[in-house]
Amino acid sequence: MTKQKTVLVVNGPNLQMLGLRQVEIYGKTTLSEIIASLAEQAQGQPGLQVADFQSNSEGQIVDFLNERFTRHHQKTALVAGLVVNAASLSHTSIAIRDAIEMYTQESVPFVEVHLSNVFRREQFRHHSHLSALADAVITGLGPLGYKAAMSFILAKQEG
Amino acid sequence: MTKQKTVLVVNGPNLQMLGLRQVEIYGKTTLSEIIASLAEQAQGQPGLQVADFQSNSEGQIVDFLNERFTRHHQKTALVAGLVVNAASLSHTSIAIRDAIEMYTQESVPFVEVHLSNVFRREQFRHHSHLSALADAVITGLGPLGYKAAMSFILAKQEG
Amino acid sequence: MTKQKTVLVVNGPNLQMLGLRQVEIYGKTTLSEIIASLAEQAQGQPGLQVADFQSNSEGQIVDFLNERFTRHHQKTALVAGLVVNAASLSHTSIAIRDAIEMYTQESVPFVEVHLSNVFRREQFRHHSHLSALADAVITGLGPLGYKAAMSFILAKQEG
Amino acid sequence: MTKQKTVLVVNGPNLQMLGLRQVEIYGKTTLSEIIASLAEQAQGQPGLQVADFQSNSEGQIVDFLNERFTRHHQKTALVAGLVVNAASLSHTSIAIRDAIEMYTQESVPFVEVHLSNVFRREQFRHHSHLSALADAVITGLGPLGYKAAMSFILAKQEG
Amino acid sequence: MTKQKTVLVVNGPNLQMLGLRQVEIYGKTTLSEIIASLAEQAQGQPGLQVADFQSNSEGQIVDFLNERFTRHHQKTALVAGLVVNAASLSHTSIAIRDAIEMYTQESVPFVEVHLSNVFRREQFRHHSHLSALADAVITGLGPLGYKAAMSFILAKQEG
Amino acid sequence: MTKQKTVLVVNGPNLQMLGLRQVEIYGKTTLSEIIASLAEQAQGQPGLQVADFQSNSEGQIVDFLNERFTRHHQKTALVAGLVVNAASLSHTSIAIRDAIEMYTQESVPFVEVHLSNVFRREQFRHHSHLSALADAVITGLGPLGYKAAMSFILAKQEG
Amino acid sequence: MTKQKTVLVVNGPNLQMLGLRQVEIYGKTTLSEIIASLAEQAQGQPGLQVADFQSNSEGQIVDFLNERFTRHHQKTALVAGLVVNAASLSHTSIAIRDAIEMYTQESVPFVEVHLSNVFRREQFRHHSHLSALADAVITGLGPLGYKAAMSFILAKQEG
Amino acid sequence: MTKQKTVLVVNGPNLQMLGLRQVEIYGKTTLSEIIASLAEQAQGQPGLQVADFQSNSEGQIVDFLNERFTRHHQKTALVAGLVVNAASLSHTSIAIRDAIEMYTQESVPFVEVHLSNVFRREQFRHHSHLSALADAVITGLGPLGYKAAMSFILAKQEG
Amino acid sequence: MTKQKTVLVVNGPNLQMLGLRQVEIYGKTTLSEIIASLAEQAQGQPGLQVADFQSNSEGQIVDFLNERFTRHHQKTALVAGLVVNAASLSHTSIAIRDAIEMYTQESVPFVEVHLSNVFRREQFRHHSHLSALADAVITGLGPLGYKAAMSFILAKQEG
Amino acid sequence: MTKQKTVLVVNGPNLQMLGLRQVEIYGKTTLSEIIASLAEQAQGQPGLQVADFQSNSEGQIVDFLNERFTRHHQKTALVAGLVVNAASLSHTSIAIRDAIEMYTQESVPFVEVHLSNVFRREQFRHHSHLSALADAVITGLGPLGYKAAMSFILAKQEG
Amino acid sequence: MTKQKTVLVVNGPNLQMLGLRQVEIYGKTTLSEIIASLAEQAQGQPGLQVADFQSNSEGQIVDFLNERFTRHHQKTALVAGLVVNAASLSHTSIAIRDAIEMYTQESVPFVEVHLSNVFRREQFRHHSHLSALADAVITGLGPLGYKAAMSFILAKQEG
Amino acid sequence: MTKQKTVLVVNGPNLQMLGLRQVEIYGKTTLSEIIASLAEQAQGQPGLQVADFQSNSEGQIVDFLNERFTRHHQKTALVAGLVVNAASLSHTSIAIRDAIEMYTQESVPFVEVHLSNVFRREQFRHHSHLSALADAVITGLGPLGYKAAMSFILAKQEG
Repeated sequence: MTKQKTVLVVNGPNLQMLGLRQVEIYGKTTLSEIIASLAEQAQGQPGLQVADFQSNSEGQIVDFLNERFTRHHQKTALVAGLVVNAASLSHTSIAIRDAIEMYTQESVPFVEVHLSNVFRREQFRHHSHLSALADAVITGLGPLGYKAAMSFILAKQEG
Repeated sequence: MTKQKTVLVVNGPNLQMLGLRQVEIYGKTTLSEIIASLAEQAQGQPGLQVADFQSNSEGQIVDFLNERFTRHHQKTALVAGLVVNAASLSHTSIAIRDAIEMYTQESVPFVEVHLSNVFRREQFRHHSHLSALADAVITGLGPLGYKAAMSFILAKQEG
Repeated sequence: MTKQKTVLVVNGPNLQMLGLRQVEIYGKTTLSEIIASLAEQAQGQPGLQVADFQSNSEGQIVDFLNERFTRHHQKTALVAGLVVNAASLSHTSIAIRDAIEMYTQESVPFVEVHLSNVFRREQFRHHSHLSALADAVITGLGPLGYKAAMSFILAKQEG
Repeated sequence: MTKQKTVLVVNGPNLQMLGLRQVEIYGKTTLSEIIASLAEQAQGQPGLQVADFQSNSEGQIVDFLNERFTRHHQKTALVAGLVVNAASLSHTSIAIRDAIEMYTQESVPFVEVHLSNVFRREQFRHHSHLSALADAVITGLGPLGYKAAMSFILAKQEG
Repeated sequence: MTKQKTVLVVNGPNLQMLGLRQVEIYGKTTLSEIIASLAEQAQGQPGLQVADFQSNSEGQIVDFLNERFTRHHQKTALVAGLVVNAASLSHTSIAIRDAIEMYTQESVPFVEVHLSNVFRREQFRHHSHLSALADAVITGLGPLGYKAAMSFILAKQEG
Repeated sequence: MTKQKTVLVVNGPNLQMLGLRQVEIYGKTTLSEIIASLAEQAQGQPGLQVADFQSNSEGQIVDFLNERFTRHHQKTALVAGLVVNAASLSHTSIAIRDAIEMYTQESVPFVEVHLSNVFRREQFRHHSHLSALADAVITGLGPLGYKAAMSFILAKQEG
Repeated sequence: MTKQKTVLVVNGPNLQMLGLRQVEIYGKTTLSEIIASLAEQAQGQPGLQVADFQSNSEGQIVDFLNERFTRHHQKTALVAGLVVNAASLSHTSIAIRDAIEMYTQESVPFVEVHLSNVFRREQFRHHSHLSALADAVITGLGPLGYKAAMSFILAKQEG
Repeated sequence: MTKQKTVLVVNGPNLQMLGLRQVEIYGKTTLSEIIASLAEQAQGQPGLQVADFQSNSEGQIVDFLNERFTRHHQKTALVAGLVVNAASLSHTSIAIRDAIEMYTQESVPFVEVHLSNVFRREQFRHHSHLSALADAVITGLGPLGYKAAMSFILAKQEG
Repeated sequence: MTKQKTVLVVNGPNLQMLGLRQVEIYGKTTLSEIIASLAEQAQGQPGLQVADFQSNSEGQIVDFLNERFTRHHQKTALVAGLVVNAASLSHTSIAIRDAIEMYTQESVPFVEVHLSNVFRREQFRHHSHLSALADAVITGLGPLGYKAAMSFILAKQEG
Repeated sequence: MTKQKTVLVVNGPNLQMLGLRQVEIYGKTTLSEIIASLAEQAQGQPGLQVADFQSNSEGQIVDFLNERFTRHHQKTALVAGLVVNAASLSHTSIAIRDAIEMYTQESVPFVEVHLSNVFRREQFRHHSHLSALADAVITGLGPLGYKAAMSFILAKQEG
Repeated sequence: MTKQKTVLVVNGPNLQMLGLRQVEIYGKTTLSEIIASLAEQAQGQPGLQVADFQSNSEGQIVDFLNERFTRHHQKTALVAGLVVNAASLSHTSIAIRDAIEMYTQESVPFVEVHLSNVFRREQFRHHSHLSALADAVITGLGPLGYKAAMSFILAKQEG
Repeated sequence: MTKQKTVLVVNGPNLQMLGLRQVEIYGKTTLSEIIASLAEQAQGQPGLQVADFQSNSEGQIVDFLNERFTRHHQKTALVAGLVVNAASLSHTSIAIRDAIEMYTQESVPFVEVHLSNVFRREQFRHHSHLSALADAVITGLGPLGYKAAMSFILAKQEG
């Protein structure tokens, strides 16, 4: 019997505004369309599912990651990987960084995603507290970036 | 018929403590007195009202700004301008900056206000992530600063 | 009659995960064990009690500190001292700093505690916005650090 | 009998070009229109008058401030407050800063004004040698900024 | 008739050593295996082909990019997109940056790829002269990164 | 009839000392010899003349530039171009920079000239506030630098 | 039979002046009172004793640490732990750092102590060469800091 | 009999693309047109000729400069001066700098040329490793810059 | 016959306010009292006199230094030495620095004087453009500093 | 009866080599000649004497200052002032700074002296840990600097 | 039978000019004399030979190192050690650094050599990308430096 | 008759612990073994001897260097060269630097030696105050480094 595992897809501040917010930078695809497409992608691998979480609040994102980690640690709900677009919090939050580190310490794959290429934008978007923990960082691919992240995590499950 | 429009007045961490907190720096006027005075000032212009929001939480401020922006964007509740005193979050929050940028991209006037003159205080208060987006920045005028910000926004409605 | 006073023990993000999270750094003692031990220590001094608060959210920590300060200021519930381990928020939060400053302005003793020695770890953990306000800073002593902080505050009550 | 007092309004380099110079940044109002409006505003308070000075030369601005300070110090011509837009010299002149400090040492209110929001412009306009001395700093309000500065000084006379 | 277009895949210093060099960082896949897989991927879209170039020399990479650009500009051999892993030269070469800019000025899509996550490694690998020109930057996905880059460029052809 | 136009040649502090001052750096040619030679060069183009101004005072240089700009703007005396050697003020004056920007905003060509190669000298001479506005910067050519600047401006008139 | 072990208590420049020197910062307790109290505390654990050393000279402190390390290494006089307040030398001495590293390489516990909270004082006191080697750093607790350090080392003996 | 001497004109990466590459920055003149015009200019002085070299490769430029220097040093082919536009390599190559220094040590005149004004462009183009060696630096004059450089070198031959 | 020589005593912005301005920093002695005392001191040496100049304007100070240097250079009025307190201009003026350098190039002794100890004050007063040219720098001695400077110059005349 | 007081004259590393060491920088006067001349100067004031101390060792200088401070504090041997040339230790020693601060806290006048003008020399000699404590700093006057320092202290005794 | 092994001696840009180039810095010995002397030195150890390579091109040096590493890795031609003087490329080339890292990862000894003492020269020569990989760094010994490097590698073979 | 000369071999803090201290970095050879080997090496050259000095104290090292310099200067005991491993003091001591400079000013050869490659270790070991004075710097060669330094000095005697 295939073991049930979950890919956590976490989105940070202002990302629920996708499709509405500065479309010349972030495009017209909504966040629910992205999540739906990832769920579909996960179905290609038996026993895998997607759990998504969006919040404008650093604390709530940490809450979510902590809660899921406790279950992962207790082996009641294993986490297959993390796809995280912490948006503006990438540049300012060490709390989220620390919450993710519990996973990477246990070798759970983690991919950092940004819709836009942050290196083309303001200087303060060039540094992310999360990148040094990530297996991979993808910026500027738009919704395709989430997909590539998911592919990477799927491949890790197989490998 | 005059179109109904709202000026959003947003206050950040510790500002609900006004009147109580370090009065030699912040003065004795309470936040509700400031808001009341702004509401009165807005009444001078038909169809204009004030909606205020205070929170110690970055996430909740972003929630408020996002929710109001959605209505503004859908033209169900137009925003006439933003008066924002993000207090300590001015120096640390890119999330609030990004939430405000949606408004400034649509030319909604935005004034950044600080009660005390931040440039007289610690070095870490000298940089604000919000200033580069603002039409105007006012520091040190005390409650009068909110009033000047409101006057600026009122003038923009007329102009 | 001995005046009733409370020592506030505040813990920041990810600290409720103690005992579970990276035990080679943070040890096996849980947060509730630490709090229990502090409560016991406080009992050694008549009229003193411990109130603890943990949150992953900067805003909630500020809420807690504001609410307690109002009561302290109104002299309905005096605060004997602050023991604060703001964890990752130490390095990023000016809002918590400002909420604590109201206490230090009124000479309430404040000790900053970190379980691990932050100076042995990543560069971004070397600076804390809180340290310049603190009476004392203790890092690396593990649970003993809270205890030493409490002893310091107890001594101040006596002194 | 009301004591006669003067508000000094000092403008720095290139500001006599207002109305002619880069109107998309500085607007169409001329400097004499601004001064006229401030004089009118001052008339609202008995015994108050405005004295304005514009120069492209740091030395002449210091001369003016020194000469007026001597009379203020000798109590032959009291200064009620300073409204200073030192323009580009704000960023480079310590001499003007020192000339102003004589006033602030004697608690004469001082407001720094900039027509445009300097924080939206080049990096070298973000620091002003004057700001750390000012009671308040106003940028980006256009001519309204001078008015708000005057209101602040008027309020100080009353208070 | 479908217009013939080429995706340029450029690899910098030491990348021909893949499979041999520090396999714990770069993996066992060889460069020719990566190229073969990209060629196959391109076949999914009619009229598209891959041209790859590897060199340890900055000058030769610029030669290649210049020569191809001349043909693209003359419309004798159109370039559909650039997939560039300039390896160590990413951090030091402005010449390659300038050679690529000719393409991005004409809206040819450009994706920067790194096999390993450069942000996990030495500080001097954190800045790339190429990133500010790129549509997207992918690091740490291993060979999958090239594939995701190709998918992005294929999607641009369709879109 | 050929329209009358003037090339402004502005020289900053200590440049009237040419021929006398450190001749191993600045050479033996005097400033009036340089100006004479430029006037002669201008004669080669009908309707063009040279107006030169030297001052040790930032304020007077701004006065000159402002006064000439007003006439240029009123089209009573058109300016064909600016040749400016602000000497030491290049490194310290934003006021002169702003006075020049009025011209460059109206596409008047501006060439910055230095007699010596400033990059060979002290670090504090390596940055000029004027360079980012200039069409061209010439250092180290000696009097020939003024000539090349004039040639550039003459060519612009023809082109 | 309990093995005899020594806790080394090392104090740097000006610390023999305690009780005399700036009492508002350093308090009235003398150094010998602190040492006496530590000796007493050590007696609580059989086989443990305290050896203290104070010097104004970096070289003599290194001599002391070297001499003791040689005996520790030869197992003729084991060191149980180090309590070091290097005072001003903390910020400037790599020699003492290197002398201590010999101990930490052999897992001898080391606690850095400062009487005052160095983070409240001048910028040059914020960095200590010793902290990155320490198990724990305690600042601002006054004489209590030594005590807490001793408790930590005693606990390590037991553990 | 006039001694035969050569002016070396060296051009760096991407400069053979002139006329094709970003014409709004670099103009439409091709590199061969520039060289032809310099050769013509040199003919005005008996015994002088131009040798030009363009390469995208730092190493080849150093090879060229080394080879010519050897002949100059052996007095088999004297070099009258260097006109160098190292383009992007100006900002990154110390090897070219060192190859040029052999000439400047023997007082061969050297002029650094850039077609565009590098100080108007990205920060990374503001520093050139070559400038501190140059007799003169000319930026932004376009092809006229080469001409001015040549004039300077011709004047040195005469002088 | 003793050759007539002059010591130039130059004072910068706000120094004519001495005796009036912040007396806790600058003391009560006026500038004319200082000059008078120096004139008296000079009389001790035959053929020596003092010429003083104060201005708030950088340009006028340069004018004065240039004019005197021309006469010194022409040997019509020799300068024995320079005593310069450029006050705030010390930190900002390269023009004055360059005007002084003409003297130091001809070995005229130059002493920089500040009444207050600038190193005890704000960071921006710690660097002076003049110090690297000076024979000696004296800060904090008050009027005695001018006297010591004069003694040094007198000694040089004798030596 | 005049109270007996001592001026401490402290000299740091390598200063006993005066007269021997780099005479073009430090001159030919020996340290004992300087001390002798200061002793003579002190005799001009009844009850004043000079105690000098030279050492190459930071620790010994701190020992000396500590020992003298204890006597001063106990009023058994009052210190009239400090003349300190800590030479190279000025730039590196916080221990000496702290030892001096005990005096300045009790308003004992302190003058920092350097024989050469440190601002003309290497960058690492431009900052002194002692300057921010000093009443005055004198550099470059040679032996005359000690004399001026002594005059300043003598004047303080009288004043 | 002794296994055949090769010491690679790699020299970077401008080093083939030795004996000709700035002899006051680099001396008169030619590169071939240095190589000859190393070959002779290697003969002292059976089975050891020297292979030298000089190039002005970063790419060719990487080619050489890659090609040799492939053979070393395939054990067809073992490398005993690397003696590298990358000259100016030491400061700018990460590509060479990466090519060397393949060797150091397999514990091949690597010594970095510079003829002159780079720390005595310009600031930009003080950092080398290669030093952090090297077993040893030798600067300023001249040709003797290569010899010492070779001795070190020979000793490693024996050891 | 051969003139008697001495090579001074100076070792700084913790180096007397060689053989005992972190052997994986510093090796097993003791300091006396190194000195013995150097003495033997010196015997190869008639009239040459070695004088070694080790101290943990900066001041004592300066004392030694001063005392020897006085004798060298008086020509009573000539110094042939300096081999200095100041260990941790290299990074912090300007006093030792100044003591050495007396020798280098008189062209006595000076080689800086470190046993380990400091560039592979912590950032604070990368800068040495001594390097800019040294003829040569050798790091990482272990005891061989001293030997190479001695060879260099021997060669200078011969040359």
